[in-house]
Amino acid sequence: MADHNALPLIILTEKFASLPGIGMKTAQKLAYYVMSMEMKDVEDFATALVNAKKNIHKCKCCMNLTEREICPICSSDVRNKSIICVVETPKDVTAFERTREYHGVYHVLHGLLSPADGVNPDSIHIKELLSRISGGNIAEVIMATNPNVEGDATAMYIANLLKSLGVKVTRLAFGLPVGSILEYADEVTLYKALENRNDM
Amino acid sequence: MADHNALPLIILTEKFASLPGIGMKTAQKLAYYVMSMEMKDVEDFATALVNAKKNIHKCKCCMNLTEREICPICSSDVRNKSIICVVETPKDVTAFERTREYHGVYHVLHGLLSPADGVNPDSIHIKELLSRISGGNIAEVIMATNPNVEGDATAMYIANLLKSLGVKVTRLAFGLPVGSILEYADEVTLYKALENRNDM
Repeated sequence: MADHNALPLIILTEKFASLPGIGMKTAQKLAYYVMSMEMKDVEDFATALVNAKKNIHKCKCCMNLTEREICPICSSDVRNKSIICVVETPKDVTAFERTREYHGVYHVLHGLLSPADGVNPDSIHIKELLSRISGGNIAEVIMATNPNVEGDATAMYIANLLKSLGVKVTRLAFGLPVGSILEYADEVTLYKALENRNDM
Repeated sequence: MADHNALPLIILTEKFASLPGIGMKTAQKLAYYVMSMEMKDVEDFATALVNAKKNIHKCKCCMNLTEREICPICSSDVRNKSIICVVETPKDVTAFERTREYHGVYHVLHGLLSPADGVNPDSIHIKELLSRISGGNIAEVIMATNPNVEGDATAMYIANLLKSLGVKVTRLAFGLPVGSILEYADEVTLYKALENRNDM
């Protein structure tokens, strides 16, 4: 930006532009919007940023983000602790919770195996999962990583480790998304839907 | 969001979602991204927010946003103070400065007349423009508001006021955008381009 712009505004624009998915144009728009906000609202925003970063950490049990030592799901009395759903990110936990149909607990890996990007089994929370399971009383581990190359590879890797421990491991079903149009389904999805067909 | 999510994270997500053009999905993505940032970077972001709001105000002369009392353009020795370019927003100043071809000064209205939205002449910085001009030595005022209904109406309103003061008032040229394709030009633009044709 040209030097006629005020420095604090340039700095704020650059901060916004450093966020993922926000380009210089949007960053500039947001910075100007902040100028039009009330001082109190700007201060609240700044406080929210620091508070979130300062007070949130990984749950000691499931690795989901929480402000407590043990997250509400892990410390809940009504959740079934013998079923663990293994996901990649905290956002996946939110997605499952939205269904209101899952009553087990979670384990958040915070990544997927990707040797090409230097993500090996030690980089994600696999050993914490293994130590949870060796603690006993686990009836089932549901591999709920994304249905793509890294997700499948990570699920397969963990499943092999768990099977050697004698734990039942399942994988989310692949098939047609509800409400989708068969004509537009890709071949692999349609093949999976056919292969996994159910009696009516 | 479900109550399994940590409160500071929900608050931060809502702060992001309150910004223009950022929906809940993007806000959640940004909040999680902040979790992955270094503490120092988050604090710098928070400081940048408050600093920008606290230290930036309108230039006493041209109403552009600045951290000084008089902005660098108004206080520059090399700018021609007798030509004033009237724009709607500080972003428009940035757009003109990018051309590197304008050497006069600006006046930022911070809005356009829009009686339906309750924006009347007193809501935007028209009287500050008039008092600048009554200060004398103004050779030309260029109306550079957007080429739409509000922009045209505002330009017309101010032009009428200024003409009664005996000041030369001009309006940005309308025509084909450089690099555009004639076939796709709208009728009004093409008509304006035809009407304002120049000798070669």
